[in-house]
Amino acid sequence: MAEKERFLSKQDVYQGKIFSVEKRQVELADGSQAQRDIVHHALAVGILPLVDADHAILVRQWRAAADDFVLEIPAGKVDSRDHGNEEEAARQAAIRELNEEIRFHPGSLTKFATVYEAIGFTDARIALYLATDMTALANAEQLPQDHGESLDLLTVSYDEMTALYQRGELNDQKTLTAYFYWTNWRLTNGKQSFFHPVTAKS
Amino acid sequence: MAEKERFLSKQDVYQGKIFSVEKRQVELADGSQAQRDIVHHALAVGILPLVDADHAILVRQWRAAADDFVLEIPAGKVDSRDHGNEEEAARQAAIRELNEEIRFHPGSLTKFATVYEAIGFTDARIALYLATDMTALANAEQLPQDHGESLDLLTVSYDEMTALYQRGELNDQKTLTAYFYWTNWRLTNGKQSFFHPVTAKS
Repeated sequence: MAEKERFLSKQDVYQGKIFSVEKRQVELADGSQAQRDIVHHALAVGILPLVDADHAILVRQWRAAADDFVLEIPAGKVDSRDHGNEEEAARQAAIRELNEEIRFHPGSLTKFATVYEAIGFTDARIALYLATDMTALANAEQLPQDHGESLDLLTVSYDEMTALYQRGELNDQKTLTAYFYWTNWRLTNGKQSFFHPVTAKS
Repeated sequence: MAEKERFLSKQDVYQGKIFSVEKRQVELADGSQAQRDIVHHALAVGILPLVDADHAILVRQWRAAADDFVLEIPAGKVDSRDHGNEEEAARQAAIRELNEEIRFHPGSLTKFATVYEAIGFTDARIALYLATDMTALANAEQLPQDHGESLDLLTVSYDEMTALYQRGELNDQKTLTAYFYWTNWRLTNGKQSFFHPVTAKS
């Protein structure tokens, strides 16, 4: 039977700009002690934005952690601009990130999962969405981009994304998860069923 | 055009037991500077182990980062017991983790992706595998479990995993990705095609 660990003490060992680190001492079921290091991070959102049944918009940006450019679905952190309970704030963050990064507003936004990103060492979670029925935003509706954010936008077909996956070039987990979700949907429902007859801005 | 960031300097701000934290100063394309905090973590492996066409073995354990029990595919870090190049070491780690955690040896082990787990703040990557044609390990072949590792093993049917997903209880990203991969495979190839006619220990 899996046992719960008992919290003994903690020490805040680093306070960074986007995460903090806690060093926690716990007691195991056998009475011995263990150290657990935990990275605390805000809830994130990632969105698979489909412009039509066969095309998604992805972003390509420099990532310090990879020392390379990485191709990803649009994503970002829930922050103080996003209000309400967690569900509402995450939804607002998803809409805001689509505006900031790709300049579209989703007529339909469906959450398909909320998951821990790397449960072995961090409480970072990401809420994942499918965005469809998108309308392009006029200049006046566009929010300012984050400072230091330098993005390429790529419209990628489903077949191109499959080729990227097969070559091992889909190397970001949220993006892989979204690609698999898209694949499931196409196999189950046919590619047209994502789209509603009327494209209304909600 | 997305711009590369230029490395200026770094400071190692925390050295923990399973990760370290680097505070990096970079120069952006416009000449301004920015701070990037990066969690450095070893390569991890996660394995979807199928005992037959319709059943996987999952593990349930206490996770300090979630302050809760979490249901996951077997997983672990590549460590000094795993040799060779990255590909070989990851494969050995996957076989070792299946031994330590669920006491099975995979006759067939297929990598289906290697991905960054949370690219916004960490270089942590995970290699994901499908394990089939499994044989139970006798006592003498079983490796010792990690100290402090307390696991429940659950044999879960595909339909049960679908119900868990639909209720939002599949809250670990590697496990969700593996579930989606399993779904794709079943939809594309039929559920029997995972399995080979002869179950030989490789």
